[in-house]
Amino acid sequence: MKYFEDIQVGETFELGRHTFTADEIKAFAQRFDPQPFHVDEAAATQSHFGALAASGWHTASIWMRLMVEYRRRMAEAARARGEPVAGVGPALGFRDMKWLKPVYVDDTIEYMSEVIELRPSDSRPTQGLMTVRSTGVNQHGALVFSFVSTTLVERRPDVP
Amino acid sequence: MKYFEDIQVGETFELGRHTFTADEIKAFAQRFDPQPFHVDEAAATQSHFGALAASGWHTASIWMRLMVEYRRRMAEAARARGEPVAGVGPALGFRDMKWLKPVYVDDTIEYMSEVIELRPSDSRPTQGLMTVRSTGVNQHGALVFSFVSTTLVERRPDVP
Repeated sequence: MKYFEDIQVGETFELGRHTFTADEIKAFAQRFDPQPFHVDEAAATQSHFGALAASGWHTASIWMRLMVEYRRRMAEAARARGEPVAGVGPALGFRDMKWLKPVYVDDTIEYMSEVIELRPSDSRPTQGLMTVRSTGVNQHGALVFSFVSTTLVERRPDVP
Repeated sequence: MKYFEDIQVGETFELGRHTFTADEIKAFAQRFDPQPFHVDEAAATQSHFGALAASGWHTASIWMRLMVEYRRRMAEAARARGEPVAGVGPALGFRDMKWLKPVYVDDTIEYMSEVIELRPSDSRPTQGLMTVRSTGVNQHGALVFSFVSTTLVERRPDVP
């Protein structure tokens, strides 16, 4: 991650895409969300979804993985350029998570995060608070997933 | 689930407990949140957590499983009494998710949901909107996890 001072409101992070297979939808749901419409194709056709759909927590967990991998790529690229890598703290929480449309078998979701607010931390002088809106859009261009989260990002050591 | 009219604000659902083993913390994180402090004990001791800690998405996904199992037990008990079982719609989303303290290896988290708001749905006359605050408390009595979610619950068919 870049230092807090080097991030702009409006900046976007392109996290990448993920295709949800039937096997993986069912494997996640069997462990964490065993509702019929997440684990059983036949039952799902009788549900409000009309077909097997991924658990919302699965959609969210894939966002997390892509974000971790994105940060890792950015850190490696910075190191390759001989630049320092700013530390990123844990998420302080999030809000307004919405599952706007179902994620069906073989849907490909493109994940993105946009910086919507930046402010210094009152209690932690070496860190700033970065708030992003993260979204997932399917292969038809429909928004399926959205939430807002705030994370601590390291400030430039050379800024007073 | 009971019908919308039979639920009271302040009512609580005791969802049960879950103990997070090291193996399961690492297995979840390897798939969905491969940050060092979630997958590697040695790296975790050097992190802000100080020891291996569960991904917040893992803590949340276990809540979902316990909620599904709770609803299933309630439905079975109602059927055993010869009572009808009200349908529960999908979650419309949630807000204010907070991971307040780390969940460490072998911590046991007790999950609960409390009804904080009930209101009829304007657009769906056969359903009401139930808002609950869900929490996870560890074996030391500390709140580790909290969020608010809204779900559609079927209304009594005999209420005009």
